[in-house]
Amino acid sequence: MRILITGAAGMIGRKLAERLARDGHLGGQAITALTLTDIVAPAAPGIPATLDVSDIANPGEAARLVADRPDVIFHTAGIVSGEAESDFDKGYRVNLDGSRLLLEAIRQIPGYKPRFVFTSSIAAFGAPYPEAIDDEFITAPLTSYGTQKAMVELLLADYTRRGFIDGVGIRLPTICIRPGKPNKAASGFFSNILREPLVGQAAVLPVEGSVRAWHASPRAAIGFLIHAATMDTPPLGARRNLNMPGLSATVDEQIDALRRVAGEGAVRLISKEIDPAIARMVDGWPRNFDASRALGLGFRADASFEEIIRNHIVDELEGRACGA
Amino acid sequence: MRILITGAAGMIGRKLAERLARDGHLGGQAITALTLTDIVAPAAPGIPATLDVSDIANPGEAARLVADRPDVIFHTAGIVSGEAESDFDKGYRVNLDGSRLLLEAIRQIPGYKPRFVFTSSIAAFGAPYPEAIDDEFITAPLTSYGTQKAMVELLLADYTRRGFIDGVGIRLPTICIRPGKPNKAASGFFSNILREPLVGQAAVLPVEGSVRAWHASPRAAIGFLIHAATMDTPPLGARRNLNMPGLSATVDEQIDALRRVAGEGAVRLISKEIDPAIARMVDGWPRNFDASRALGLGFRADASFEEIIRNHIVDELEGRACGA
Repeated sequence: MRILITGAAGMIGRKLAERLARDGHLGGQAITALTLTDIVAPAAPGIPATLDVSDIANPGEAARLVADRPDVIFHTAGIVSGEAESDFDKGYRVNLDGSRLLLEAIRQIPGYKPRFVFTSSIAAFGAPYPEAIDDEFITAPLTSYGTQKAMVELLLADYTRRGFIDGVGIRLPTICIRPGKPNKAASGFFSNILREPLVGQAAVLPVEGSVRAWHASPRAAIGFLIHAATMDTPPLGARRNLNMPGLSATVDEQIDALRRVAGEGAVRLISKEIDPAIARMVDGWPRNFDASRALGLGFRADASFEEIIRNHIVDELEGRACGA
Repeated sequence: MRILITGAAGMIGRKLAERLARDGHLGGQAITALTLTDIVAPAAPGIPATLDVSDIANPGEAARLVADRPDVIFHTAGIVSGEAESDFDKGYRVNLDGSRLLLEAIRQIPGYKPRFVFTSSIAAFGAPYPEAIDDEFITAPLTSYGTQKAMVELLLADYTRRGFIDGVGIRLPTICIRPGKPNKAASGFFSNILREPLVGQAAVLPVEGSVRAWHASPRAAIGFLIHAATMDTPPLGARRNLNMPGLSATVDEQIDALRRVAGEGAVRLISKEIDPAIARMVDGWPRNFDASRALGLGFRADASFEEIIRNHIVDELEGRACGA
């Protein structure tokens, strides 16, 4: 089993590599080659791996990466939403052209048909939404990032239909609790208000507690990727892009879960300072999904926000959190 | 009012140019410049026009075409579905890259924001379908042609949101009665069974009479293009791609209309010879739409198949048809 991960220095790519290194196999087959590539050097994952630095949007790079015909390709590389919005050219170059060059490099190898797992996003959807977004709802994004994700989803389905790849696109929920430092993404507060108090640090909540969003933990997201790489794909039919299951929760529900795990002291570290710009952006984001199709296909989400918080404490804090 | 039409040698482009020449104005403004471009030389439309031969997928061609900043661009150029399926590279090159190069050429001109009307297709959808397809149904095409149309729809919406164009994408129904010779498109029979008997020629029906499809006449389609070029666009919001209204009719209903207009003699010229390959393809095509959004925005379809046939006799046969 030969595996290629693009975007391997990103949070999802790094955690996926660590999980594969820990398992040593994928879908019951021993991992014999693992190539990690990104625009910056990926970390060594704990088993022998090829660590590669590349820009897949540069001509020739994709061909080099697939030359040894990896059985499974996890394509997680991409420019994040904020940057794709501020740098129009870069977003289309990396998120659309880079993905297309990778698919084209695969198509150019006769008889080669890898499992191709693509991390799409619920940003592929845009308001107005129905009560719950199912897999038949139109992808009418309201950002350039979401547009690029939706375009690659279309390519993935067509390249699969043509027999060039065996593709599965997974639309990831907001990842919460995102490890690391607070970042400037508008969605960052969903993680900040849990992650920071758990280590005794203050956090700012820029929206009302009634704001609702669709969440999955990093651990659940890695589970989605592994399942997408190993599942039977014929039941997917022609519809190869799937809404991933998640938890629909309000900020107040997130904070209640924090209270139950880490106590009132942790909750008191959150201070509400409404930011009208962030509140307006969040207003356009999807809140709830009907992920019954993915659930029926065996994808599994987190059971509760308490579980998300407890898993974060195990995975990121060596089991120790303030108040927990 | 300066106007550019791509694909101007195609059936839709040619009829649009003729209509604009006849009207002399668009949306109440006199037409001061009309540029017709296609991969082969377009016909002169009857008013002074620039007749241009170009391949918009060649670098630099698009920039040349928009250099004089046309106020309205009708982008109808494209490879048809059969060819986009048989020639993968050519379909993506012309239908996707050609459209993107045109949008990019527009974006590179500071302060320029033309009305951009794009002829998409109901091929942007794929089975399984709901009872009636509305504007919220997912674009999950089952052909490379439909994939390319859906990708350009996404670009059109993003380039509009960014303020580079004022875009309207219109998903055309099957065009019936298509003028000219019988062609080899799998959908050709919907037109053949009406057009050929009207001139005393035999026609083959390769499917059962119960087969249902979504139709619009060439006259209605040109009306959609004119309305898309002149309508107020703020009511569209961010959703810039629209299912056009049409007539949902079975083949039997088409034939009944032919009988009413041209008599039993015309109907007897149709011979049923089931073609299993065509029957299978047609089985995957959309049958019925909920076009209430487009209707609410002022787009108007044909009233009946009898009207479609009678208008065909006026527009294509100088008012004279066998049996009519």
